[in-house]
Amino acid sequence: MVAEVVSIGTELLLGQIVDTDAPYLARQLCALGVSVYHRATVGDNLERAVATVKQAVARADLVFLIGGLGPTMDDLTRDVMAAVMDAPLARDAAIAEQLTAYFAQRGAALVESVLRQADVPAGARALPNANGTAPGLLLEKNNKIVVALPGPPNELIPLFEAEVFPFLRERAGGDRQVIRSRTLRIVGMGESLVEEKVRDLMQSANPTVAPYAKTGEVHLRVTAKAASEEEADALTRERADLLRAILGAVVYGEDENTLEEAVVRLLIEKNKTIATAESCTGGLLAGRITNVAGSSAVFHTGVVTYANESKVDLLKVPQALIASVGAVSSQVARAMAERVRELAGSDYGISITGIAGPGGGTPDKPVGLVYVGFADGETVTADKHLFGGLRADVRLRSTQAALNRLRLALLSNAE
Amino acid sequence: MVAEVVSIGTELLLGQIVDTDAPYLARQLCALGVSVYHRATVGDNLERAVATVKQAVARADLVFLIGGLGPTMDDLTRDVMAAVMDAPLARDAAIAEQLTAYFAQRGAALVESVLRQADVPAGARALPNANGTAPGLLLEKNNKIVVALPGPPNELIPLFEAEVFPFLRERAGGDRQVIRSRTLRIVGMGESLVEEKVRDLMQSANPTVAPYAKTGEVHLRVTAKAASEEEADALTRERADLLRAILGAVVYGEDENTLEEAVVRLLIEKNKTIATAESCTGGLLAGRITNVAGSSAVFHTGVVTYANESKVDLLKVPQALIASVGAVSSQVARAMAERVRELAGSDYGISITGIAGPGGGTPDKPVGLVYVGFADGETVTADKHLFGGLRADVRLRSTQAALNRLRLALLSNAE
Repeated sequence: MVAEVVSIGTELLLGQIVDTDAPYLARQLCALGVSVYHRATVGDNLERAVATVKQAVARADLVFLIGGLGPTMDDLTRDVMAAVMDAPLARDAAIAEQLTAYFAQRGAALVESVLRQADVPAGARALPNANGTAPGLLLEKNNKIVVALPGPPNELIPLFEAEVFPFLRERAGGDRQVIRSRTLRIVGMGESLVEEKVRDLMQSANPTVAPYAKTGEVHLRVTAKAASEEEADALTRERADLLRAILGAVVYGEDENTLEEAVVRLLIEKNKTIATAESCTGGLLAGRITNVAGSSAVFHTGVVTYANESKVDLLKVPQALIASVGAVSSQVARAMAERVRELAGSDYGISITGIAGPGGGTPDKPVGLVYVGFADGETVTADKHLFGGLRADVRLRSTQAALNRLRLALLSNAE
Repeated sequence: MVAEVVSIGTELLLGQIVDTDAPYLARQLCALGVSVYHRATVGDNLERAVATVKQAVARADLVFLIGGLGPTMDDLTRDVMAAVMDAPLARDAAIAEQLTAYFAQRGAALVESVLRQADVPAGARALPNANGTAPGLLLEKNNKIVVALPGPPNELIPLFEAEVFPFLRERAGGDRQVIRSRTLRIVGMGESLVEEKVRDLMQSANPTVAPYAKTGEVHLRVTAKAASEEEADALTRERADLLRAILGAVVYGEDENTLEEAVVRLLIEKNKTIATAESCTGGLLAGRITNVAGSSAVFHTGVVTYANESKVDLLKVPQALIASVGAVSSQVARAMAERVRELAGSDYGISITGIAGPGGGTPDKPVGLVYVGFADGETVTADKHLFGGLRADVRLRSTQAALNRLRLALLSNAE
């Protein structure tokens, strides 16, 4: 079964609101094994909306219309559905009565236009809307199914789940195909290199493997089609394991797991504590670590030494060292990591010092130059990075690098 | 001039990510007086993408292609543009050299596929991308303009603003109607109360006023149509001033100004410095302040005292105080604010201690209970809050409350 989704509304078309309904429906259809090849957005214009929906109905078995079911003059979806499916509108007495009762109950005046919401194309079924006045509509005709749903997500989602999902699950039944996916999360290797390493597996049609670049990490999405969820899950599991074997330790997690969660989990497993000393990231690294529920077991103290005097006063980084090599240097990164470890009495200390921009860069020390220091009580190291992007990107990439430094240390820790 | 926007990417089509680029472009085109009647989304499938873009080019003068400009095999937009516009791809030596230099500078291996990003359709102009490796592309041919932009918003937006907006502004000229809007940003007052106070102004058709609830703040969007930008700007300015007069000090800024920017600007104006002591927010408050370029003038030091012993060791909060009233208390919030002010030698100290959840709540001290302490050298205060939502919401709302506390202190400071 092939579906298309058409969002109808000038406020959507012009970007005054971001459409989250169409992505939601696409994910649901995907989970039902229904293929989606096209989505479209048109404004509140009858002629253009009819032409767009006609094209969708010609190409697909199932077409969703989102929005435009309200009472106002620019709510045209009922008219569009009637025109495309050649199914004239008629007022449904039961719905009209419900609408009248709804307004009476609230002591509100019933504006005549409200009753437009009781107009139903010939042969269509009204789908009760528990969270709004406009019912959804479902029409089957000439081997095509057209479903119209109200635009507000708090109406569309419950209505889809209660009325449409069970209907489609049954229809899709028998030979239905289920689509399942899982995402491998990768840090410390660029998108192109990841792709080069797994290119052969990206040729496969089932499961498919697709890379997505994010700021400071790469995601590999593995998607499988099969007759059952179990079978599809097994296919993605097997392919994900193969990818992990090829890529090794750069894979830090799966699906919704974040890098900070992976690091906190490793710290808990290894029974280690960490303290942070941040300059250009200004608390973001500590903020990411403490965003993980349960991080209090492994993180007790962090300092933000944004100014040079703060590095000297709070961390006792030698003033002379900063004066000779500068605050953005391997030496100062190392001193910060070691000193915060001692100050906090933790197993590890990690530090970030760099130039996030937009100002402050020089030819020798350009914007994006960042040092990550790491101390474990035996050795103290610093890694040099040069990150691209705007201030917020440099800061985020810096915290990624620090979290990954810590993760690799924990992985190589044999205890 | 009529434009269409086509988003290309399977992850967009299937709803794995929500498309914010297309709404952004639609708003920009609208501001330029360019009409947009259709938007479409297709997956990484050459045949379907070509057919969809062909239709767009047939209907419109100007077509935007979003995404699919990266180095990997499923990045097809260059091929789509070449096929639709009959403009074969050729490798651009200058771009290839830039890509090679970019990787060399970072000491990263240059994978051959990276150079696909240097392939340019015949006659197209490459648009420099300051925040990524893939340039945008602009091709004018047969009275049609096709513009391809990279998908990540942090690349697309600066590239559009720097390269495409000025180009279109010149082209659009003439009898255009312009839509302009501005957003008032409000903190410390809920959406319903804001709406109640400005309800009369929300009835107006031009300018329109619409409220949007965000986590920890409310935005009021004022939109006006007029014959010129100046006229539309004057309409929104006048309406915004009226709203400000009604709402008062809860309006902290306009448009893209963040609360942290408003606070840093006030600190700079009043020539004051601030130090932070954070428990449940774990560095997020310092992270927000230091995300503002120029914050180094007013913020030197922050501490994250996540554990009780850290509050005692680093901030010298009396152990006995924590033992008697608990770390989440008005008294400890005040002690943290005062002690970090002294430790950092700053004008102000601000602190946050609370229970972000999901665990750690008790009947007396439930999840969401947060104290914000504030010290200015003369008095020390603490405000009690009870926030709803998940862990991340509680943490974000806590930083909003702390920033707003600081903002109100700065506003009432007559110096």
